[in-house]
Amino acid sequence: MQKKMLSLALFLFPGQHLGAWRLPDAIPEMDVGIEHYVRAAQLAEEAKLDAIFFEDQAALPRANDIAEGDTYGAAHPRSIHFDPMMVLPALAMHTKHLGLAATSTASFNEPYNLARRFASIDFISNGRAGWNLVTSFNENEAQNFGLDAHLEHGARYERASEFIDVVTGLWDSWEEDAVTRDKETGVYFDVEKMHFLRHEGKFFKVRGPLTMGRSPQGRPVIFQAGSSEPGRELAARTADVVFTLQTDIAESRAFRDDIRARAVRFGRDPDKIKILVGATPIVGTTDEEAQELRIRMRELIPEELAISHLMPHSGGVDFRTYDLNGPMPDLPETNAGKSHRSAIVALARSENLSILQTARRFAEGSYLKLVGAPATVADRMQAWREADACDGFLVVPTHYPTGVEDFTRRVVPELQRRGFFRTEYTGKHLRDHLGVTSYS
Amino acid sequence: MQKKMLSLALFLFPGQHLGAWRLPDAIPEMDVGIEHYVRAAQLAEEAKLDAIFFEDQAALPRANDIAEGDTYGAAHPRSIHFDPMMVLPALAMHTKHLGLAATSTASFNEPYNLARRFASIDFISNGRAGWNLVTSFNENEAQNFGLDAHLEHGARYERASEFIDVVTGLWDSWEEDAVTRDKETGVYFDVEKMHFLRHEGKFFKVRGPLTMGRSPQGRPVIFQAGSSEPGRELAARTADVVFTLQTDIAESRAFRDDIRARAVRFGRDPDKIKILVGATPIVGTTDEEAQELRIRMRELIPEELAISHLMPHSGGVDFRTYDLNGPMPDLPETNAGKSHRSAIVALARSENLSILQTARRFAEGSYLKLVGAPATVADRMQAWREADACDGFLVVPTHYPTGVEDFTRRVVPELQRRGFFRTEYTGKHLRDHLGVTSYS
Repeated sequence: MQKKMLSLALFLFPGQHLGAWRLPDAIPEMDVGIEHYVRAAQLAEEAKLDAIFFEDQAALPRANDIAEGDTYGAAHPRSIHFDPMMVLPALAMHTKHLGLAATSTASFNEPYNLARRFASIDFISNGRAGWNLVTSFNENEAQNFGLDAHLEHGARYERASEFIDVVTGLWDSWEEDAVTRDKETGVYFDVEKMHFLRHEGKFFKVRGPLTMGRSPQGRPVIFQAGSSEPGRELAARTADVVFTLQTDIAESRAFRDDIRARAVRFGRDPDKIKILVGATPIVGTTDEEAQELRIRMRELIPEELAISHLMPHSGGVDFRTYDLNGPMPDLPETNAGKSHRSAIVALARSENLSILQTARRFAEGSYLKLVGAPATVADRMQAWREADACDGFLVVPTHYPTGVEDFTRRVVPELQRRGFFRTEYTGKHLRDHLGVTSYS
Repeated sequence: MQKKMLSLALFLFPGQHLGAWRLPDAIPEMDVGIEHYVRAAQLAEEAKLDAIFFEDQAALPRANDIAEGDTYGAAHPRSIHFDPMMVLPALAMHTKHLGLAATSTASFNEPYNLARRFASIDFISNGRAGWNLVTSFNENEAQNFGLDAHLEHGARYERASEFIDVVTGLWDSWEEDAVTRDKETGVYFDVEKMHFLRHEGKFFKVRGPLTMGRSPQGRPVIFQAGSSEPGRELAARTADVVFTLQTDIAESRAFRDDIRARAVRFGRDPDKIKILVGATPIVGTTDEEAQELRIRMRELIPEELAISHLMPHSGGVDFRTYDLNGPMPDLPETNAGKSHRSAIVALARSENLSILQTARRFAEGSYLKLVGAPATVADRMQAWREADACDGFLVVPTHYPTGVEDFTRRVVPELQRRGFFRTEYTGKHLRDHLGVTSYS
């Protein structure tokens, strides 16, 4: 039987773990240090990963709180980061094979600009560009773009759906051999092979075409992370890669089955849509050492930041008036966030955790934790893949550089030895690495 | 007496000359070939130029005509080009000193996004970013952004003026030492040194701050090219570099005097605003050889493209019904474009030019032509600078690579020998090269 190979991308997300940046061997200055981004991309390419991937938010994650006078937001390491799209062309100069993917919101960009930028990156990287389509959902961002609040959820997805059709339509606006640059005749391009889009929809009116011929991949790879009903529909119709947050193998398999079934209903080959689970490896020489590292990093999460994460699920209890090292109080019933609240109380009771311990556990990040020696981490990845719970992982290390190296230099070789991951690049483009070469 | 040094930037504008791309030694494939952009930037840095500079239009220059069925637009070499902002991070990886400046329109971008992108480039290049603010004026672009026509001129400038205040305000939103990343205390930044912008104006409402601390230059260098009354006012108030199209030394001096006087009225030091004239060098071993090259390139401009340039100034005469090798007919009086029309007829009569010859002359580009042996080109640059007609030049070669090499390897050494241009970089940032270090 053929082995089920893994897709693996490095999700470089400095500040994702709210405490790990305080480890002695972490370099938080990477947040605006391009040489560190380059180094991380090179580590990813040495390990033959499919891609490096960046999320984005166009605001401080705690801007609203700070604006209202709460200063704990100043402990949030994700406050400082680039527009990741500007990082991709730089990384293209220092890598040859690695896919280069960044998030850019459909909510605050024009589709013509966005299509043109990713087509530019696709040329600059010679066919390695990926775009993660998101719709923006938080007020921190909205307030940097003239809005007090936001489009409601349904309208956001309706707009995103039209947005993506404009973008892919623009990417398709030139046939492959349209740009001839014929010195003899003086004709620069074949006007018969250039097509106006002439899109006129509810949200956008765009004539096209782009200012460049068809890019090496034709269409850069499209990532999405929708989990709601309209999010799943949009992903099944238009995404090449679906990034998902899962911690239970059976639930993840159900999610993957659902996306694949929807893709079939849209007339797509379900094998051309890859489901990648967000996973945070925490690696040690032994499983025990890895567990210790996890606890050490957890305790580095600043107290106020951890408590602020818990507060929206407290049912109105202000933890700051309690002894944070004392036991978790009962949380009153309210209509909102009941499931989170029950889980929090159950966690605190079952392990006899203090308020602060509970808060830090809750603030540790929600990606699947793969904690252990390299073989243990590889075991779990293999198990998820073999159970068809995913096609692979977006790997989110806790910190740079050691967290990145632990995965690329210790876990990946173990996966390669077992035959679940490539040892050499065979294709040329990001679509080849992911096995999503046919997009239509 | 101290010599008046020149500021020099390479304005890499493939397709600017509508015929030169057809020369045997031109490489039109540079339009989407990043390795050629890198090579051009390296040539500029070898010559110790201040910067490399890119213009932009988010549309095919002849999109409207093509949409209406005229296919001559397919001869326009400027149809194919990147979003130049995506090129800058790539060039930052292959250069150390050269300034990196690109055009990005205020008309179809959000100021928060634009400020963040250029701040990112400023970090990535370690203090070498420049932004050329333009307002978009043509329908080809408007139709890619949901509009049929455009904001009228006054409103465009009113909006641009507010736009630039938002951008610079965002660049100023963090004090220099605000981001501390203090592992000991867990505080990532000093909230007292981070400032919300809280801008609420006629066109924009933006809270800020950016998602990164103060960039190496604080504010990336601002280029503008306004020549109208509101354009001059905006430039005098906010620009570090004014790019201008001038062909007469006395008129150029008057323009420079005017901008400087306006700057003083805004309380600025006039020496901190640099006037760069767009200049196209056409270089030969002898002056005669250069003249021959000019004529050769002119004759490579495709006939239909040349005629289409002339038509808006024909007073309604359809040249396409005439013998193009015959003499220029009289052009009827109309209200529009009278000065151009008189100039065209005068040119044709004085040199006994055919319609096509006149059209090609007119379509050759409007930058100051510096035609001759390297010493001749250097003489003219020196003369303009010594007459205070400019502070330097944005140098627009006709083609790549030889047109670029002719300037950087033949003309610049001549200027260096004469002591009018640096032989080594002395400063670190683009602001240092230009001598515009103090922006407030």
